[in-house]
Amino acid sequence: MLSVGVVGGTGYTGIELLRLLIMHPQVELKYVTSRSEAGTKVSDLFPNLREHTDIEFTVPDIDTLSECDIVFFATPNGTAMKMVPDLVAKGCRVIDLAADFRIKDQAVWEHWYGMDHACAELLSEAVYGLPEINREAVRDARIVANPGCYPTAVTLGFLPLIENGLVEDQHLIADAKSGISGAGRGANVAMLFSETNESFKPYGVAGHRHLPEIRQTLGNIAGHDVGLTFVPHLLPMIRGIEASLYAVLNSTGTDLHELYARRYAAEPFVDVLPEGSMPETRSVRGVNMCRISVFQPQGGDTVVVSSVIDNLVKGAAGQAIQNMNIMSRLPETEGLVHPALLP
Amino acid sequence: MLSVGVVGGTGYTGIELLRLLIMHPQVELKYVTSRSEAGTKVSDLFPNLREHTDIEFTVPDIDTLSECDIVFFATPNGTAMKMVPDLVAKGCRVIDLAADFRIKDQAVWEHWYGMDHACAELLSEAVYGLPEINREAVRDARIVANPGCYPTAVTLGFLPLIENGLVEDQHLIADAKSGISGAGRGANVAMLFSETNESFKPYGVAGHRHLPEIRQTLGNIAGHDVGLTFVPHLLPMIRGIEASLYAVLNSTGTDLHELYARRYAAEPFVDVLPEGSMPETRSVRGVNMCRISVFQPQGGDTVVVSSVIDNLVKGAAGQAIQNMNIMSRLPETEGLVHPALLP
Amino acid sequence: MLSVGVVGGTGYTGIELLRLLIMHPQVELKYVTSRSEAGTKVSDLFPNLREHTDIEFTVPDIDTLSECDIVFFATPNGTAMKMVPDLVAKGCRVIDLAADFRIKDQAVWEHWYGMDHACAELLSEAVYGLPEINREAVRDARIVANPGCYPTAVTLGFLPLIENGLVEDQHLIADAKSGISGAGRGANVAMLFSETNESFKPYGVAGHRHLPEIRQTLGNIAGHDVGLTFVPHLLPMIRGIEASLYAVLNSTGTDLHELYARRYAAEPFVDVLPEGSMPETRSVRGVNMCRISVFQPQGGDTVVVSSVIDNLVKGAAGQAIQNMNIMSRLPETEGLVHPALLP
Amino acid sequence: MLSVGVVGGTGYTGIELLRLLIMHPQVELKYVTSRSEAGTKVSDLFPNLREHTDIEFTVPDIDTLSECDIVFFATPNGTAMKMVPDLVAKGCRVIDLAADFRIKDQAVWEHWYGMDHACAELLSEAVYGLPEINREAVRDARIVANPGCYPTAVTLGFLPLIENGLVEDQHLIADAKSGISGAGRGANVAMLFSETNESFKPYGVAGHRHLPEIRQTLGNIAGHDVGLTFVPHLLPMIRGIEASLYAVLNSTGTDLHELYARRYAAEPFVDVLPEGSMPETRSVRGVNMCRISVFQPQGGDTVVVSSVIDNLVKGAAGQAIQNMNIMSRLPETEGLVHPALLP
Repeated sequence: MLSVGVVGGTGYTGIELLRLLIMHPQVELKYVTSRSEAGTKVSDLFPNLREHTDIEFTVPDIDTLSECDIVFFATPNGTAMKMVPDLVAKGCRVIDLAADFRIKDQAVWEHWYGMDHACAELLSEAVYGLPEINREAVRDARIVANPGCYPTAVTLGFLPLIENGLVEDQHLIADAKSGISGAGRGANVAMLFSETNESFKPYGVAGHRHLPEIRQTLGNIAGHDVGLTFVPHLLPMIRGIEASLYAVLNSTGTDLHELYARRYAAEPFVDVLPEGSMPETRSVRGVNMCRISVFQPQGGDTVVVSSVIDNLVKGAAGQAIQNMNIMSRLPETEGLVHPALLP
Repeated sequence: MLSVGVVGGTGYTGIELLRLLIMHPQVELKYVTSRSEAGTKVSDLFPNLREHTDIEFTVPDIDTLSECDIVFFATPNGTAMKMVPDLVAKGCRVIDLAADFRIKDQAVWEHWYGMDHACAELLSEAVYGLPEINREAVRDARIVANPGCYPTAVTLGFLPLIENGLVEDQHLIADAKSGISGAGRGANVAMLFSETNESFKPYGVAGHRHLPEIRQTLGNIAGHDVGLTFVPHLLPMIRGIEASLYAVLNSTGTDLHELYARRYAAEPFVDVLPEGSMPETRSVRGVNMCRISVFQPQGGDTVVVSSVIDNLVKGAAGQAIQNMNIMSRLPETEGLVHPALLP
Repeated sequence: MLSVGVVGGTGYTGIELLRLLIMHPQVELKYVTSRSEAGTKVSDLFPNLREHTDIEFTVPDIDTLSECDIVFFATPNGTAMKMVPDLVAKGCRVIDLAADFRIKDQAVWEHWYGMDHACAELLSEAVYGLPEINREAVRDARIVANPGCYPTAVTLGFLPLIENGLVEDQHLIADAKSGISGAGRGANVAMLFSETNESFKPYGVAGHRHLPEIRQTLGNIAGHDVGLTFVPHLLPMIRGIEASLYAVLNSTGTDLHELYARRYAAEPFVDVLPEGSMPETRSVRGVNMCRISVFQPQGGDTVVVSSVIDNLVKGAAGQAIQNMNIMSRLPETEGLVHPALLP
Repeated sequence: MLSVGVVGGTGYTGIELLRLLIMHPQVELKYVTSRSEAGTKVSDLFPNLREHTDIEFTVPDIDTLSECDIVFFATPNGTAMKMVPDLVAKGCRVIDLAADFRIKDQAVWEHWYGMDHACAELLSEAVYGLPEINREAVRDARIVANPGCYPTAVTLGFLPLIENGLVEDQHLIADAKSGISGAGRGANVAMLFSETNESFKPYGVAGHRHLPEIRQTLGNIAGHDVGLTFVPHLLPMIRGIEASLYAVLNSTGTDLHELYARRYAAEPFVDVLPEGSMPETRSVRGVNMCRISVFQPQGGDTVVVSSVIDNLVKGAAGQAIQNMNIMSRLPETEGLVHPALLP
């Protein structure tokens, strides 16, 4: 049994992590921390867990957390970086679901996140936890930077094209749409039901924090900087991301569906749909799966990829557990295989 | 391993049954039938099952179905009654998720369902599959009539009061609200997104088919006919039923919360909430659970009960599997314990 | 032209009031106040008003407001009572959309609203602005207490029964459901999209502030205290209230539909539906209308009434303008007649 | 007063047209036809119109319709073309909200719509009713082809760029999202609430009927064929379209916001938002308005335009009335100016 701690269990990625950890047959959940809710039973805050755990929130503490094999951070940006050095020094392995270790370039991180980095010396060691490109490095990582939700959907969608140099990569377009749970569980007028239902809008066109993260990963794959326009939008639904990706092909001879099917054939959590069918977000609701379709409309030179995930699962908590399984030599799919709820 | 068949796998109770059967560790799913979809892979129709089953829809056939230990009917009303006599004659046990065997009085059934009953001789043998009142009878039943969704929520809510004769039972009120999946997966203008979102309404005030079913069960418990006003309403959401129940107390001395807590203490799928808290439907989404609160506002002589279920799970497919577990001497909770998806 | 001011224009009743006042042909909107948004153009906060007004929020000020013929308060409870005495002293007439003047009994008000009343001497003078019962008194009122949203739906639904003494009025039941805009535009985790969509729940069973208000009005109509159980619920939609009302008839001979149709025949904003049809909230979305149906299921002795309004219109801003029209000798329907948006 | 007839009043564009015509001060609504609902009062089918009209559906008939000054067709594709020749011969003027007269090239139309055209000789005469480009031609048209919903949003969004030759126009991208009312009011499993809520997906990637329509218009503006990739998506909401448009700039010196502001300064129904703000669909719900923002993220060479409309208003019925006003020498905004309902 793995001994596991969760720092920050009151947000949406935290509660989703708890749901998945509770169902995981190889996990003993030892600590769930929350400064504001210390002493409260987790199931008093989240009644869906009433029959499943008696654990209480505790105040985060390095000494007790370091008893765990793996500590997850489901905290706001800037929290993990203050505790991670002490935890790894004590032999803990850490998976950060926030952004503290995602960007390798300290200056870029500090620019986009608007704060000083507290442990920049660990940035180079941290492994970007997208198993489909970094599985081997994750295996022995002490610190895993769990990818952002948009970056997961966009990167997996562009990956086969970029790896194979098939597209003009200075004008990539990612038109992405996310359910509202992506904005977190904080009190926020803009995310009230009455502000968001029956409406749709783009946001962050001028620059979203996931842009440098996606550029970094795609650039690493391409071997040079790529040009990407990334426009996120807010969907009137709770869970789900769809990214529609556009690029101009360098040549038009490749069977794109076959390319994608082959690239992801061995991946347990990427599903390339049959030719002609299109993914819908509900087919991945609550499950650790990315479904992808690739099109070449009217046989032209523009490729269209649609990639869907549940932002809280393959885009956060599920991918974190996938990383935990890899780090712990468990079967990668352990605790992560169940059908999505439909309808 | 139990060998299981599902007749009618294309509706919402059918697909939910498939999802739950796939996750059940003791079930081998042998047949899923659909006349209209015969030859299609189930996962082509429901992509959430893509990684989970390769089974195809087949034409329903008594001989092949009778190889199964248990056959579920997730068909429209009036279908099961035509096949059940042959199946039980061949030694199959049957769980009907439709209404064919719910009403003991043939004339009442024919009045409300507007057709002749094809095997009225089996009505007395069929067991009404609400485990909380009929667990022993379910154990050895050949035919289980799985309760309706509204009747499950309403009956479990009123049960402790009626059993103990605590309320004036000629003027019971059940104000019930259901998500739209309760109306099924048929093409129907009234259930289009654009007709139902951002709206709410009562329906069936003049008489809903679940009224005689609830009256029959409550009457059996009371030992005499009860008077019930039942008003269903349509909620702009997919899953979930909430029933608010009202009755006048015969006397006001009883600790109602304690009464409910005690009545359901041993029930794995009924959860009486702590005093003062109220159930929300999302806390049971996708899971086989009924959560109940009981109130006596301002200490008066009116009792208010709120009872929530997922109409497709404890109100249909989950309860059917609970009955299957009981019939098969499996642990009653086998395959039915996982936390609801939240948010 | 009426000269009008609005105190508190940033909440949902405020913005709805602005929308309706802008469309009103006899109104000149002089001031819209907001301490937090002073200096901002109203249309910068609410882009739906971009083509319709250039007015800016100002700091509330008695001297400038008193230039208006009518001042509306769309403020939190406890604000109007501090400004109203000075405004009426200066000759202004006031319509308070909050609760400060709704309850005649100061002690009851202070108990339910948890604060001292700042001008209790004006409580007896204030007129409860439900035109269907108080039209004449509204005409010359200096202070109109605009009714709460639930009280409007419930009172109009019970009115013909209580006026005529047709029901046992010690055990009235009001099972009411409201869209989420009723909770206001404040930052509130519980009203986030991700907390409320795809869910439904009762709340305030132990006691909601609208309970004493409804009891006061129904008691006045009955000529004695009535017994009422009032259970509000939260609907996953923005606008709309449906109240399902239940009572036991004293006798069963009355043609209830005819009674309701006659009672409301001359009322421009109450619509009794044809026998057998049921109201849906979307049919009143955005409009000042209460639609009502009355039933006597199975010809029994229980009467069921369903009453729907838009909580922000007939339940707040529209009714306020209806009162303004009455106070100002304008046609009562002026500026209030347009079809609901459907779908 | 204009005398007006509506052929096909039971779909969503039909009912929206009725709502807007009823509010129009210069219109007398003479006929509303529906074969299936002939004899039914319009307000029995659509209760939101109960206080507003007593008109009944009638069987469509050329002789009675030809008494009207203007006849609107809110019918499925292929209906108008059978009646229009007779109506114009009798002196009627026609506005077709379906697609029968949108495409000038008969072969292209027949390819995409899968039927023979019944009056191809009128295609060249018909005027494409996008007032922002064809106002003068609309004025004297006998037949106006009211634009599709997606084409309206996409064309108005690209227009200033294409008119001025500012972008590489062989690789235009239009990522468009529509509410579900765009799919019409027909019984259709795929548009049930339970199939569409809490989900999002692309569709029609291989080729949507609005693609040739957009290409035709943009090509006319450019003076040569343009290359366009058009991907529509289905939003879990009733009304609203957002189109995010992407193109590579030929040069980067132009002030794009200023260009858009100037191009649409005199247009009553196109609103270019202040720099830095982004449109949301709810700000145009129920109103005849297109709101547009233009961005040049990170100062690069890619331009991003976001354009929102209500698909049933500026995308259908509202634009049709705008065309009617132009054709009838009424003020273009007559009957079309009211703020959107918000929230």
